[in-house]
Order: sequence, then C-alpha cells, then structure tokens
Amino acid sequence: MVNALKAAKAKLKERENLTSAKWVFDFNEGDGKMRSLLGGKGANLAEMTRAGMPVPPGFTITTEACLRFFNRGYKIDDLLKDQLFEALGRLEKQKGQRLGDPLSPLLVSVRSGSVTSMPGMMDTILNLGLNDETVRGLAAITKNPRFAYDCYRRLIQMFGNVVFGIGHHFFEYQLTALLREEGLDHEQDLTEAALRQIVDRYKKCVIEQAGRPFPQDPHEQLLLAIEAVFKSWHNPRAKYYRKINHISDKQGTAVTIQNMVFGNTGETSGTGVLFSRNPSTGANELYGEFLFNAQGEDVVAGIRTPLPILRLEAAMPEAFEQLVEVAKRLERHFKDMQDIEFTIEQGKLYILQTRSGKRNAQAAVRLAVEFVHEQVITKEEAILRIEPSHLDQLLHRGLNESQIQNVLAVGLAASPGASTGQLVFDTDQAVAWSKAGKKVILARQETTPEDIQGMLVSEGVLTSRGGLTSHAAVVARGMGKSCVCGCEAVRIDPVTKAMYVASSVIHEGDWITLDGGTGRIIEGKVSLHEAEMSIELEEILRWSDEIRKLKVLANADTPHDAAVARKLGAEGIGLCRTEHMFFSPFRLPVVQRMILADSIDERKAVLEEILPMQLSDFLELFKEMSGLPVTIRLLDPPLHEFLPNLDELREQMLQLEREEQLAVLTEDKEASRLKQQQLSAFILKTEALQEKNPMLGQRGCRVGIVYPEIYDMQIEAIFKAFSRCLDEGVEVIPELMIPLVGDVAELRAMRELVDKVALQVLGKEKIQACPYKVGTMIEVPRAALTAKKIAAQADFFSFGTNDLTQMTYGYSRDDAEHKFLAHYLDHNILPHNPFEVLDHEGVGQLIEMAVASGRSVKPRIKTGICGEHGGDRQSIMFCHNAGLDYVSCSPYRIPLARIAAAQAVIQFKDENNVLPAV
Amino acid sequence: MVNALKAAKAKLKERENLTSAKWVFDFNEGDGKMRSLLGGKGANLAEMTRAGMPVPPGFTITTEACLRFFNRGYKIDDLLKDQLFEALGRLEKQKGQRLGDPLSPLLVSVRSGSVTSMPGMMDTILNLGLNDETVRGLAAITKNPRFAYDCYRRLIQMFGNVVFGIGHHFFEYQLTALLREEGLDHEQDLTEAALRQIVDRYKKCVIEQAGRPFPQDPHEQLLLAIEAVFKSWHNPRAKYYRKINHISDKQGTAVTIQNMVFGNTGETSGTGVLFSRNPSTGANELYGEFLFNAQGEDVVAGIRTPLPILRLEAAMPEAFEQLVEVAKRLERHFKDMQDIEFTIEQGKLYILQTRSGKRNAQAAVRLAVEFVHEQVITKEEAILRIEPSHLDQLLHRGLNESQIQNVLAVGLAASPGASTGQLVFDTDQAVAWSKAGKKVILARQETTPEDIQGMLVSEGVLTSRGGLTSHAAVVARGMGKSCVCGCEAVRIDPVTKAMYVASSVIHEGDWITLDGGTGRIIEGKVSLHEAEMSIELEEILRWSDEIRKLKVLANADTPHDAAVARKLGAEGIGLCRTEHMFFSPFRLPVVQRMILADSIDERKAVLEEILPMQLSDFLELFKEMSGLPVTIRLLDPPLHEFLPNLDELREQMLQLEREEQLAVLTEDKEASRLKQQQLSAFILKTEALQEKNPMLGQRGCRVGIVYPEIYDMQIEAIFKAFSRCLDEGVEVIPELMIPLVGDVAELRAMRELVDKVALQVLGKEKIQACPYKVGTMIEVPRAALTAKKIAAQADFFSFGTNDLTQMTYGYSRDDAEHKFLAHYLDHNILPHNPFEVLDHEGVGQLIEMAVASGRSVKPRIKTGICGEHGGDRQSIMFCHNAGLDYVSCSPYRIPLARIAAAQAVIQFKDENNVLPAV
Repeated sequence: MVNALKAAKAKLKERENLTSAKWVFDFNEGDGKMRSLLGGKGANLAEMTRAGMPVPPGFTITTEACLRFFNRGYKIDDLLKDQLFEALGRLEKQKGQRLGDPLSPLLVSVRSGSVTSMPGMMDTILNLGLNDETVRGLAAITKNPRFAYDCYRRLIQMFGNVVFGIGHHFFEYQLTALLREEGLDHEQDLTEAALRQIVDRYKKCVIEQAGRPFPQDPHEQLLLAIEAVFKSWHNPRAKYYRKINHISDKQGTAVTIQNMVFGNTGETSGTGVLFSRNPSTGANELYGEFLFNAQGEDVVAGIRTPLPILRLEAAMPEAFEQLVEVAKRLERHFKDMQDIEFTIEQGKLYILQTRSGKRNAQAAVRLAVEFVHEQVITKEEAILRIEPSHLDQLLHRGLNESQIQNVLAVGLAASPGASTGQLVFDTDQAVAWSKAGKKVILARQETTPEDIQGMLVSEGVLTSRGGLTSHAAVVARGMGKSCVCGCEAVRIDPVTKAMYVASSVIHEGDWITLDGGTGRIIEGKVSLHEAEMSIELEEILRWSDEIRKLKVLANADTPHDAAVARKLGAEGIGLCRTEHMFFSPFRLPVVQRMILADSIDERKAVLEEILPMQLSDFLELFKEMSGLPVTIRLLDPPLHEFLPNLDELREQMLQLEREEQLAVLTEDKEASRLKQQQLSAFILKTEALQEKNPMLGQRGCRVGIVYPEIYDMQIEAIFKAFSRCLDEGVEVIPELMIPLVGDVAELRAMRELVDKVALQVLGKEKIQACPYKVGTMIEVPRAALTAKKIAAQADFFSFGTNDLTQMTYGYSRDDAEHKFLAHYLDHNILPHNPFEVLDHEGVGQLIEMAVASGRSVKPRIKTGICGEHGGDRQSIMFCHNAGLDYVSCSPYRIPLARIAAAQAVIQFKDENNVLPAV
Repeated sequence: MVNALKAAKAKLKERENLTSAKWVFDFNEGDGKMRSLLGGKGANLAEMTRAGMPVPPGFTITTEACLRFFNRGYKIDDLLKDQLFEALGRLEKQKGQRLGDPLSPLLVSVRSGSVTSMPGMMDTILNLGLNDETVRGLAAITKNPRFAYDCYRRLIQMFGNVVFGIGHHFFEYQLTALLREEGLDHEQDLTEAALRQIVDRYKKCVIEQAGRPFPQDPHEQLLLAIEAVFKSWHNPRAKYYRKINHISDKQGTAVTIQNMVFGNTGETSGTGVLFSRNPSTGANELYGEFLFNAQGEDVVAGIRTPLPILRLEAAMPEAFEQLVEVAKRLERHFKDMQDIEFTIEQGKLYILQTRSGKRNAQAAVRLAVEFVHEQVITKEEAILRIEPSHLDQLLHRGLNESQIQNVLAVGLAASPGASTGQLVFDTDQAVAWSKAGKKVILARQETTPEDIQGMLVSEGVLTSRGGLTSHAAVVARGMGKSCVCGCEAVRIDPVTKAMYVASSVIHEGDWITLDGGTGRIIEGKVSLHEAEMSIELEEILRWSDEIRKLKVLANADTPHDAAVARKLGAEGIGLCRTEHMFFSPFRLPVVQRMILADSIDERKAVLEEILPMQLSDFLELFKEMSGLPVTIRLLDPPLHEFLPNLDELREQMLQLEREEQLAVLTEDKEASRLKQQQLSAFILKTEALQEKNPMLGQRGCRVGIVYPEIYDMQIEAIFKAFSRCLDEGVEVIPELMIPLVGDVAELRAMRELVDKVALQVLGKEKIQACPYKVGTMIEVPRAALTAKKIAAQADFFSFGTNDLTQMTYGYSRDDAEHKFLAHYLDHNILPHNPFEVLDHEGVGQLIEMAVASGRSVKPRIKTGICGEHGGDRQSIMFCHNAGLDYVSCSPYRIPLARIAAAQAVIQFKDENNVLPAV
C-alpha cells in the first residue's frame, strides 16, 4: 500500500517536473540570446519583436521539444500539445482570428529554425490553416478569391511535399497541363476558376500519391506540419550539410509558427530579400531583390525574375524608406550585415526573418574592418569574424566562376590555386610545348621523380591515383603549383594520349582547367584572377599580430617560397624539407647514383658532388631569411622515393626484350643485352629498397643512422653556408631538425654527428661561435611518450602532426582516405577527418603530454607544430591552448595562421591556459 | 697565498679519498656476495678460500679498477700500482717466492672475471713470471727442465697472443715445423732441447710480429697482462656475446692473479674439469674430463683427447676421493650444480675455479626439481632457475645435433621445431610426393595463400624473402610447422628447381633439414627426437600454477591447436584468429569470390556458403574448450591478403599473351582471349585492393565497418555454434573480440552489430541467456590513449602488442628487421628488438595508461595481452607488474608462460604492484 502510494507520488512529481518545462515561447517572451533553444530564426524574431520591429506575431517550439520528440518515438505527446495550443490560443486572441474559423481564419507559416544556420536545408510550410471552408472565408474577407485559391493550392503542394513526401514534379505536371489546356504561358495569368481546378487536381494528386486525402482539419495540419519539420532535421541533405560544415547532429531544430502575411494580394504587395550591404564586395550599399504580388517561395523558386531592390523606391517610396531604416537598425542591433526577408502586404512592411548575411571572403574582410571603423564592433570582434579558411580564396589565383560550364569530375584538392592550360600526358611533351610558349596541364596516373621537370613547366598537375601525400601532391605544394590528385573518376591513358571521364574523352592539346582549392576538373579554358592582398586584409593582419601569442613560421623549401612567406608575414622557417631540394631534374640522377652506390666510398664520392648544390640551397635560403631562424630538417623520406617506379622499370625491361626479338643485326642485340644488364642491376637494387609499409620503414633519422655519410654532407653544407653568410654580413640562425626520432638514443647519436661536423667546419673556417640549435620532430607516438628523456637532447620539439596522426590512429593517409575514411565520415564513426582537423583527444593528448614532460626537464624548450594542421584554424586553437610557441605552415597559409592565432587568444582570453605560457 | 694553500689541501684530500678506495682484494678478504666487485670467478675463489677449500692463493683487482682504467685513457695509474704490488708482496710472502727471483720464482696466472659469466670470451695468461733466468730456476727447483721450458713456451705464446695480438697460427706454424724436423707426431714427445728451440723461435716470432721483444721483466709482464685483460672486455667476441645475452657493456671485468699450480709436472699431475652432475641430463652422477701431465689450456685446446673423469679413480684414488668430496661440498655450498676446474700437482688437488654449470633445458628442469627434493633449495628458487625460453627446446621436435655436418645458411627462426625432408619447389610437387609417402620440405621465395595446401603436406617451410610476420611465418606458426623464413643467403629458383647457397646447389629431391628454433638450414637428413614433457617439468609447472597470478590462455585457431593448448595447461583461448580459418585450400577460392563480389548481394550469397564452414570451425573449437572461455577475434587482415600476389597474376597474364602469339588455331586464340579477359578483371580488382601501407590500411574493424555483412556472417556462426553446443550439453563461454579499434565509435558500432545478430540467432533458437562478452584489441596507440571511453563499450581489453609496438615506434616489422633494426641493435641505439622484448618505456606506458583509465570507469574489466610478447619472459614480468589478468600465447609457449608468470610473483613478492590486483 505504502509502496503503491509512493509510486503514484513519484509519477505525479515526474509529471510536475515535465509540465514545468517550457517548450513553447511567444516571440515577445524570448530574445536574441536564446539561440540554442529557439534556433537562429526564432531567437532573431523574438529579438526583433522586442526591438519593436514590424514582425508578424507568432511563437517558437524549442529545440529541446524536438529532441524530446526524437526520444519519444517521433511522437508529439500531450504535454507538448497542451503548451502548443495554449500559445496558439494567445496568437488567435491577439489577431482576433481562429485556426479553422471559416469567418475569420488564422493562417500561419510553420518553419524550421536550427541553432546554426543551414539555409534551405530543412522544410517550411506556408498558408497553413486553409481548407475547403476557410479558403472561402479568406476569399470573402480579402475580396480576392483568386488570391485565396492561389494560397490554398500552394499549401496543398507544400504540405503534400513536406508531410507526405510527394515529389514536386507531380504537382508541376498538373500545373503545366492546365496551363497548356488554358493556352497560357505564366501561372500568374491563371483565373480564379483555373486555380480552383488546380486545387481539385492537387487534392486528387495527394490521394493518389499518399493514399490519404489532404487533411481538412487545420489542427491536424498543424501537428503534422510540426512533426514533418522536426523530422526534416534528419533528411539526407540536412545531414550532409551538417557533416561538411561540422555541425553536431544532436542540436535538433526549433519550429517557428508565425502569423501569415501576404505578398501576393495584389500590386501593392510583394516580397523580397535585402542584404544591408553588398555580400560580394562588402561595399556599404543596399543589395537585394523584390517581386511584386508574390509569396516568399516565388523568389526562391526562380520561376519569375525578381527586380533589383532599388526599383522598390519608385513603386512604394514609403515602404522602401521604412525598409532602409529597418535594415540600418537591424544592422546596428545585430552588429553585422543582415540578410532580411520581408513582405509588403498592401503597402505595409513586415520583417519575416533576419540573419547575418553569408558573404564571400573579400566581403567578410572588408565588412569586419569597416564595422570597426564605424565603431560598431571592436577589433577583437572583427578578427573573430574572419573564417580563416576563406583566406585561401583570397591568396591564390581564382577562377572566374561565371565562365565554368562543365565540371568533369572532382578529385582531391591537393594544392590550392587555379590553373588553365592544354592537356599533356608526359614530361617530354610538357617541356616541348612549354618551350613553344604554350600553357600546359600535366596529367599522369601518378607522378614519379622523373616527372618533376614536366611538373615544373606545367601550370597545374592532375593525377588519377594517389592521396594528399602522394608524390604529385607533395611536390606540387612545394612548387606552389595547383594540383588535383587521386581523381579516380578519370582514366588517364598515356598511350592513346587521352583522358576518359564518364562518356567524355579529352585529348592531348584540349584545354582544361584545374581548381586545386576544391579539386574540380573543368572542361575548357576559364579565365583566372590573380590573388591580391586587400588593404582591409592587411589591416586585420596587423591587428592580429598585436594580439596573438603564437609565432607563425613557414614551411618553405626554396628561396622563392621563403620570399613569399616572408612577404606574407612569416617569422622564420619552421620546416625546410631538404628532400625537396633533391627532386630537381638536374640533381635527381646524381641523387640516384648516391642511393645506388655499391660501397660507402662510392657513395661519399657522389655526396661530394651533391654538397655544393646543398650549400647553395642553404645559402640562398639563409639570405632570404636573414635575421630569422631557419629550421632545416635533415633528409626524411625512404630512399626509394628518389628512384623510378618499379613497374615502369619492369615495363622498360619487357620493351627491351621485345625489341631484342625484333632486332636482326648482331650489334643491336649486343647493345640491347648491355642495356638489359644495366637495367636489370638497377631493378635489383630498386627491389632491395622496396618496403611493405614504407611509412613505417627506413625513413627519417633511420636513414641518417644507417647511412651517416648522407647527414654528414647535409650538416657540412649547412655550416659552410653559415660561414659564407657570416662573410657577407648575413645574420643566420640555423636550427637542425632530426626527423622521426622514436628513442632518445637516435637523437643523441645524430646530435653528436651534428656537433662533430659543426666543430670540423667551424674550426676549419676559424669561426668562434655559431648559435645553432639541434631539435627533433615529435611525430612517432613513442617520442611523445618518452619526451622527458628526449628533451634532454633537444633544443626544440616540432610536432609533425601528419605522421603523428597516421601512427596514433594507425591510418596510412594514402590508403585511409579512399578505402574507409570517407565511409567513416559518412556514417558518423568519426566527426572529422583527423588529417584535416587535429584530433584533440588522442593526438592532442600526446602533444600535451610531450610538452608537459619536455618542459619538466627543460622549461624553456621551444615547441611548435609543422604538420599540415599548422594551417588549420581548429588545430591552431589547440596549439594555442596547449601552450606551444609556434605553428609552421605553407607560405600561403601564413595570413590564415596569423588570424587564427589571434582568434585563439580572444576566444580563450578568460580561460586559464592548460599549460603556462613561456 | 691562501688560495694556493686551499688548492693544495683539496688535492691532498682528493688523493686521500682515492687511496682510501680499495681496488685489490686478497682471496681471504672477499666472499661470494662480492660478485659485482670481484667478478664471478674472484668472488667464488674468495668464497672457496673462506670455506677452506684447497685453492691456490691469490688476489683480485676489482671491476671498479677496470672502469677507472677505461676512464683514465686506458692507463694503470700509480694508485692502482701501489695496491697491486702490496698484494703481490703479501702473496710472495705467503708462498716464500718472489716474482722474477731466479732462485725461487713466483709464477702466477692472470685471468679475467666478469660479473655475469661469459665463458671463453675474454683472455687468460698462465705461467706469468717466467723469463730467460727464472725458467732456469724453475728447471732447477722442479728438477724437470723439460717442464720448465714447456711452461715458458706456453707463456710466450699466450702473452704474444693476448698482449701483442699475434695470431696463434704464427706459433703453431713454428711448432709444426719443428715436429716435422724432429720427425715427431705429438708435442708431448718433444725433448727439452726441442722445447728450448721452440722458446727461441717463439721469441723471434714475437719480435717479428710485434716489433718488440718478449718482456723479460716479470713486473712489466704483469702490468701488460692486466692491461690486456682489462682491454679484452672490449674485444669483438665479448661484445657480441654480451649483446646476444643482454649483458650491460658497463660492468667491466675483474682480474684475478693467482699462484700457479702445475698439472704438467709429470704423471702424478694433471688437470681437468668436473661437473658435479650430468649437465646434459641432470642425472646425479659425476661428469668430467681429465688429462694427465697437462696444463688447463690443453683440455680446452682439444689437441690431446682427455679421459673420462672416472679414470682418475684408479690412477689417483686419494685425489679422486678428495675431488668428489669437494664437489659435493661446493654443490651444497653454492646450492647448484658446479662446473669445477681443478689441477693435481704431484698428487695434490687444487681447485682453480668453480661456477654454476651451464646446462641444457632438460637438465635444468631435472636439477631444479631434484634440488628441491634434496632440500637444497625451495620450490620458489627452483622455479626462478628455469630459463623459460629454454622450454622451446623441450617442447618441440629437436635435432640430433651430432649428425649435423653442414649448416648451409641461417635465416629467421620463424616457427620452432625441426623438420627434415626432400626439397620441393611448388605446391603441386609437394602434394604429389607427399601422397607417394615422401617427406617434403617446401622452399619458396615467399608464400601466398595458394601455397597453403603445399605447406599443409610439408614437414617444414623455407622462404628466401619475408620477415617474422610474413605469410609463410604466420601460417606456419598457425599450423605448428617448423619454418625458416627470409633467408636472403639462399636463392630459390622455382624454374630450374634448384636452391643456390654460396657455391652449393641443392636440387629438387635432395634432403635438407630445417631448425625453426634457430633458423638453421642444414644439408642432408638429420634424425629428429620427439618433444616430451618430463615428469620433472610437470612438477615445476604444478608448483608454478600454485604461485602465479596471471592466467595463461592460448592463441589457437584450430581444434588441434586448442587440444594441444589444453594439454599444455591453457585456461581458455585468448585469441582465435578467424582469418586463419579462411586460408585452407578448399575455402580460399570461396573467400576470394566473396572478396571480389561486385555487389553486396553477390557477397552475401557467397557468405552464405562460408557460414557453415565457420559454424563447424567454432563448434569444434568450443567442444575442445568446453567450460573455458574462447575469445574469437573477428576478421582482421587486409582483404588482399587472401588474393594471389599481383606480380604472379601479371606473370600469368604475360604467359597467356606469349602462348597466344604461339597459338595457330583460331579456337585456341579465342579461349586464350577469354582467359585473358577473366584474368584482367581479376588483376584490376586485386589492384584496387592494394595499399601503400597495408599495415595502416583497411584491416580489422575497418573491414567490419565498411563490409558489415562479413562480420555479420561470423557473428551468426558463433551464436549458431553456441546453440548447437547447448543442445549437446557443451558449456561455451564465447568472447567476441573486435580488432584494431582506434575510436570508441568503432567499437560501439560493432558491439551493436554483435548484439543485433546475437538477438536474432538466439531469438530464433529460443535461447534465454548466453553469457557472451564483447571486447576489443588495444593495438592502436589511440585506443590506449582513449581507453577510458572505450572501456565503457568493452567487457575486456586484449593488448595486441605486435601492432601496438609497430605503431608506437612507427616500425613496420617486416621492413624494420632487415633494413635498420639489425643496425640499431649492433650499434646500441636500442637495447633489444622491441618485437621480441616488450618496450616498457613507450609501449608499456600505453598499456599501463590504458589499464588504469579503463579500470577507472570499469574496475573489473578483464585485461591481457595476446601479441607474441605473451610468450616472452620479460614481457610476462611486465604484464604481471602492470596488473593484467592474463597472457595469451601460442600453445607450445604455454608452459613457458606458466613458469614466467610464477617467476614474476616470486621476483616481485616484496614489491608493491603498480596496479591493484583484481
């Protein structure tokens, strides 16, 4: 008995708790800060209502109610219904109308409203409340039956589509048929009678397609519409949009129910969209479109061509003036350029929605700076408004998008910038045509070091195989060439000199265009616009530099890269990959001889030839970076990367054999035999260097330890270059970086080698002091785990987040992207591609551990990252929070990094840093 | 002034501190516990002297003095000289002889003595103190000039070799020449005159080879000899011995100077070696050798054949009786079987050295058990005496070592056990000959799944390529076949059906023998002895089971393995690799069809065919393990592992093309075209599955997530097998293990799949309860780093230490061993191969982190390891200390693991565990 009583009480209590939750807010109950509960739209409508803007009344069902709906088996329960109908009651009272009342029908819109803007991704229903009776009432009240039936047929179509999932084409088909029957061209010419016809046909269409009639009960309409909007959170396009924009699936959507106003009641009515400034340029001018006698979806649907907003001034000067004034008020109120949806109903202006307007990169920068000048926002706020990744658009050559007609395929965006040229399939042709003054695009299945010369003379590079770390991608980024790689949708046939995409064939000499920033491969020639640094961008960057704590260094391998980087604000070189210096077509044969040397003496002899080349590399680099630190990473990749592809070598061998079979003269045969022998030896040595998992093989300092003579030569070149610079009065701060260290003994051995060679060279040159540093990449998990020991031997830690991510996840970047990572992202197994956004939880944990334990023995040890994450905003935020000293990124990402580093400071100003800043 | 005074005082003080250090200990000053200071030999001589054994007097220079010698530029300084000559003075006084005194010359031996026994690795000089004068004195005193000159010529040779580095052959050449001149066969037949000749020739030889004369000053001899013995610590063979036995290079050696006694003074003298028990069998019987009228090195040199020790009884009954008694006393004193060097000088017994005798595995076990029965040691001590890795010898077929004549080459010891058979080069021949009753050894460059049938019928497998995780190695271990792999010294040519090793050629049908435990490839047939479990071993294992905390489970994939494992004491299966079930020759074609399926429906159809096979696999496994847990890992490897090698496919393609060119008839051409088309499609799909770094590619649960239908089939088979077992009254405890998890979302998805399928199957079979568990491998660093989250979804963690080591170090096992790991070990960059000995510092840290954070959310989560480290002693120690619940290893390693687990308890009894035991 007692227990039963207790249970009943508990139930009552639970019910009370539930009823005390508020799931529905009238517009005048909320405000702009309630975004997470009311969605962006609901919060803005509430804020505007509070600010006395002309907003039609209504209320918003919260995102919490939406999540509750999902959790309760996709049912709207009685508790929510109670609150909903109470709010409806208040709206009815305010308007003096009632839902379903034939004499005074209330009509409402039902719209989605997510927390983060997802324009056009979810569903909306207008004119809800109409049925066979209320449509007659509406006709009578407005004295405009044509308008009433036009509204009704629109409701049936939208409702049919959103609630019952009936394709729009079923309705369009009916409409087109009737227009044909009536001999009319435009639907606005339809008579009232014709519109009644349409209503009848649409209702039949609903029965046929949905198996049930269009509901005549407006309350049923309302509940079904709300359910449908809730559910539209999970529709595929919304899911996809959230995925690519990194929006959580767990937010849910709010639903806003708003009293309808009508832009389609005649020639003194209309509807439009207004941007308070120009979203393409940022200029302080009105920008927008307007349609007379239309409802909102007509603007979106694009059936009728809207008029420029300035045309409204002549037609309805009062409404226009009011609109301009409201726009300015909204902009100041929300402190941003506004994208405003409005309707004019018989001369009266209503604001239906406002939100911060989407803008391109150029406009974003200009807007942010001008708002500061206008004292609307602070410098900090301006900096926070820049989406760093948009700077890519500003800092690379771009396409004139309007000229793009046919995107053939989309590959991996391997190296940003656009390029256009005539297609070639091999290096020889590329060189020949380029000499003849032609612009060429080189297409290869995948590139090898032997293609370098071809890449060098091409505008851009396209491959059908290989990932973002493939040879083509790495070399193109190093050269600053645009590159699209791993595009498996195209088949590249160097024999027939043609590229096949779906049913198209592109031949040698045909023009194509690459967009290395998006991976698009475009048919034909597209004109390009050069990158430029606007004065506004320079201003934002100056502000950012005043604020940021992280230094920004460059990944630069050539004097050209170094010069670009310095111009873009680099404070030194954080990563010079010496292997890229070996790939040039004149050096490669020498490097290959070095690798294939039979003895250490033979190898040393070849290294003597390479030494002056390296010396001049470093000399030029040091001069470009005079006075700033230059971090040089000793040779890193597996040696076989410098050798030709084995398959190609074998193919050459087969070719020789075939030729031999055809040759008749004995001399030919002997020459061929000799060639075969040489080739065979070459193949054998190349085979011996092959590895099953080169990513985990003999690379980095493992090469330096097994073949110390190679590092010896590089170190000698560095210190000789230092000495030359000293003679020429150039200030040099060389930092030698040992790659792929996993145990302190590796670093100790390499550090000893550096010290030994430095002493030799500096001693010979009689130089007393050189402020060189020796540090290490932390890119193997074990290095992070044993960082305490390693710090004792290191002057700096540079986190190589590419490799660290590969090994911490056990993902080979090349293999993962195609084989399973795409699937993982599609299926929400992982929230991000960890090669794009640094994984805080795993990889980040290792970095934090390493920084903490490194500093525990060497408090001022310099720390930074030099993987590709160095150019990613979220990753830079992480670096700031982890207390690193610098990020190093490719030259064109430096402005991005400068801004992101400042954003990190602003965003985390009030939070304690995880690690003390040094 | 004051400062100069201070400095002088400080210097004096330093000198006092130094002189207060004691670097030389007389035998009666030390004891057996001073091993680290006096070396094993010095400590034992001191201990024996204390115990009143007949030991010639002497003293020992400490290992500290040795290290000081190394630190002082390889010089013996005055401080050490002072102590040395003081000790020499005491010895001279005790013996009434003096070094270099022509009338009463003291002769001494100078021997090395390391802390850890390194038999024969360092140098010894006997008869030191002889010169042209004292030799005459010795002749006079002993009245045996022949003896005296024999001693002298031995000294010159040893001294020349050890101190001046002159090769023994220079001396042997002189000796042989003189024997020839004298017409003699044996050196013991040389006259005094001839021996004098030899002395002269040896002295000349020293001048010629060393460029300086043999030193006549005995004190100079002594100092040079001590220096040489110190230096011999760094000779290459000693370094190598330390490396393979994991002995630190930093110990240094002690030097023992001992009064000479002479076994070569006539027929009542002699020298020998005695083991207190039989070191080959452990039997309690005397075992040793003896030479009349000889010095110690004669026994070692093998020029004269020694006599069995029992022959001494008849010849010198008193000395023999004394020897037997001393041996027993020494054994009881040192609590172990002793290896005793003794000399009888004119009937008087002297003990020159004693140490614990080396023994083979069988003897070690018997000795340990019998010493317990004799109450000499405790059970715990007995267990600690077993070197677990020696059990490999006991538990696999062994070779009769005496029959081995020619070791052709040594490859990687990939799968233990010996095998002998006739050589074949392909599967077809292997099958044909095996059917004809022949025993065959299969030799391949490397194996692919298509060789499985050949491997199955062979006694053993040999490959010239591929590491310890290559296909051949993995499959052979799974099958329990002996395997030597990656032997690059042999060239295997399947076309000529021959194997080339150096200058030898082994043809098809020739007999060869493999030793999979050492990697030896032996020419000809060698008889094998079967493995057996002795009653002593069983007793040790019973004692170990009483003590150990870790459970010991088996890695077993077949019912046969499971049966073996259970017999050897497995407490369940910790790892059943389901992929091994797919490799059988009847299944492989079906599996290949599954992989190459064009659509999911096609794949599902093929999986339907595989289901009954998997079902019967699990059924049999469950029956073998009735009542014990069976952990089944769902499919793990990359799918392309099941497909033929691409090179071979391409070769087949070329062959078809060639055949086509030769074919005349049109029909032939068409058939060939068809074949080519099929093959071409096969190649294309195989290419599509290739990965640049398969180790970091699509394997493990990544396959299960992208192709859930595969895991679905496996899960269904497991639960259907459970249901059948239930019907038959077999108790089953299935544990499903998800491989290669890196993020909790992967495990969650797979766990949901398991639960879904389990519910379906159990529901259909109307089974109410099934005690299944779902756990995960922790083998990706990120899994260890995020173990807290993963634990929420896991019932157990099984650390896959092979992969965890690969990824934590960034080493591909296959590539690392050949390319740089060998170099790293040779050059002391790493102390151990981390694939053999678990790396405590890095990999171990991850394991400890994962265990701790897993238990923080799930205190009773089961943890264990199932990598190959599960069978390694040091790694098992680590697992015990890390508080894991179990280790899982291959069946034949189970006894080893049982003992090592007990050893861990004994060794760390008094220390606190890092983690609380669960």
